Amino acid sequence: MRNETRIILASASPRRRELLSQIGLDFEVMVSQVEEKVSSMLPERVVEELSAQKAEAVLAALPDSRENVLVIGADTVVALEGQILGKPGSPQEAARMLRSLSGKAHGVYTGVTLLYRPGEGPVREAACAWRGGPCPSGRPQGGTDFILQKTFHERTDVVFCPLTEEEIAFYVSSGDCMDKAGAYGIQGIFARYVKGIRGDYNNVVGLPVGRLYQEAKEWLI
Amino acid sequence: MRNETRIILASASPRRRELLSQIGLDFEVMVSQVEEKVSSMLPERVVEELSAQKAEAVLAALPDSRENVLVIGADTVVALEGQILGKPGSPQEAARMLRSLSGKAHGVYTGVTLLYRPGEGPVREAACAWRGGPCPSGRPQGGTDFILQKTFHERTDVVFCPLTEEEIAFYVSSGDCMDKAGAYGIQGIFARYVKGIRGDYNNVVGLPVGRLYQEAKEWLI
Repeated sequence: MRNETRIILASASPRRRELLSQIGLDFEVMVSQVEEKVSSMLPERVVEELSAQKAEAVLAALPDSRENVLVIGADTVVALEGQILGKPGSPQEAARMLRSLSGKAHGVYTGVTLLYRPGEGPVREAACAWRGGPCPSGRPQGGTDFILQKTFHERTDVVFCPLTEEEIAFYVSSGDCMDKAGAYGIQGIFARYVKGIRGDYNNVVGLPVGRLYQEAKEWLI
Repeated sequence: MRNETRIILASASPRRRELLSQIGLDFEVMVSQVEEKVSSMLPERVVEELSAQKAEAVLAALPDSRENVLVIGADTVVALEGQILGKPGSPQEAARMLRSLSGKAHGVYTGVTLLYRPGEGPVREAACAWRGGPCPSGRPQGGTDFILQKTFHERTDVVFCPLTEEEIAFYVSSGDCMDKAGAYGIQGIFARYVKGIRGDYNNVVGLPVGRLYQEAKEWLI
């Protein structure tokens, strides 16, 4: 893909970085501390709000310039029967989470926010046209006059095989579960316990790259 | 996993090798030439029959011994509206396949055959019990008296985003499509064009490791 735009992934997750590389995008990683605030307990709202806060914090820290910038923020949670499961705080909590997910279906939600700040020249003209009008005459001195935003989420349902206590103990002792929402990583050894999914697989890993590419491409090409 | 059994993957596919490593199995790769013969045009039968032929050819080439051996054969096809798509013979055929899959759902079928030849000792006793009876008294000299077999298939439905002619040309020119059934690899850059799936993701890559592990574990642990 021709890179007329500087793409920034606002996430420290190595898995999100791999996924964005996998679909052939050229990007940098920048992370800003955000105080996470949510106005809802619905998983789809939580991940959308947190993805927006992460993207906004990174864009706010970037000096304005004439370049086109696309910032991608993302957040993932696991939800079981309306209850959000984040990252486990201890091996005991990881085992409890896995026990609660055993033999059942749960939802994985990833929220994504794309913030696009057009620079100057033809890309800016195209961005104005996309907004539905001509460009404002004269861009503010050293300032941004408009930012395009898309925020969405994808949900993937994941069905686990029934897990025995030995399997839970074995997996928890591998340590693979500790930095992951819901206490499992679908892309590792845990694949042996996954019966199937419905939705985008990469959404479970941390980034719905199918939808992301489809949403971003009209701004990038 | 404790390896009381020698595990052999009867497939040259590097993707199947990666998947089997991912779920933590310790195995070797052996491939025997087979003359592929199928008695049906149903995708689920085709992949089951071919997986069995591959596994049988490898087991037949192994000298009998006192060790426990598990041979895993697999075969994958893509089916669109009842029509089987294999590997494309040319870039033009790859483009035609992708055009036919664009914006639609198709099925990916992987057939798996597990052949288990128990050696001697407690594992053999367990295998006899699994068959439902005591072990035959006295194993034939240098010969195999029984082999356990499981053959099954998994189907995963995959939905593509609509593909433009430019996207098809771009992907075909990457060369990623040429050695793959249906002319795409879900685990590479093509992920940007995949809307979602239903079933086991790894089945699309080439091996349904969730089902495979569940089926094999009663013989292995």
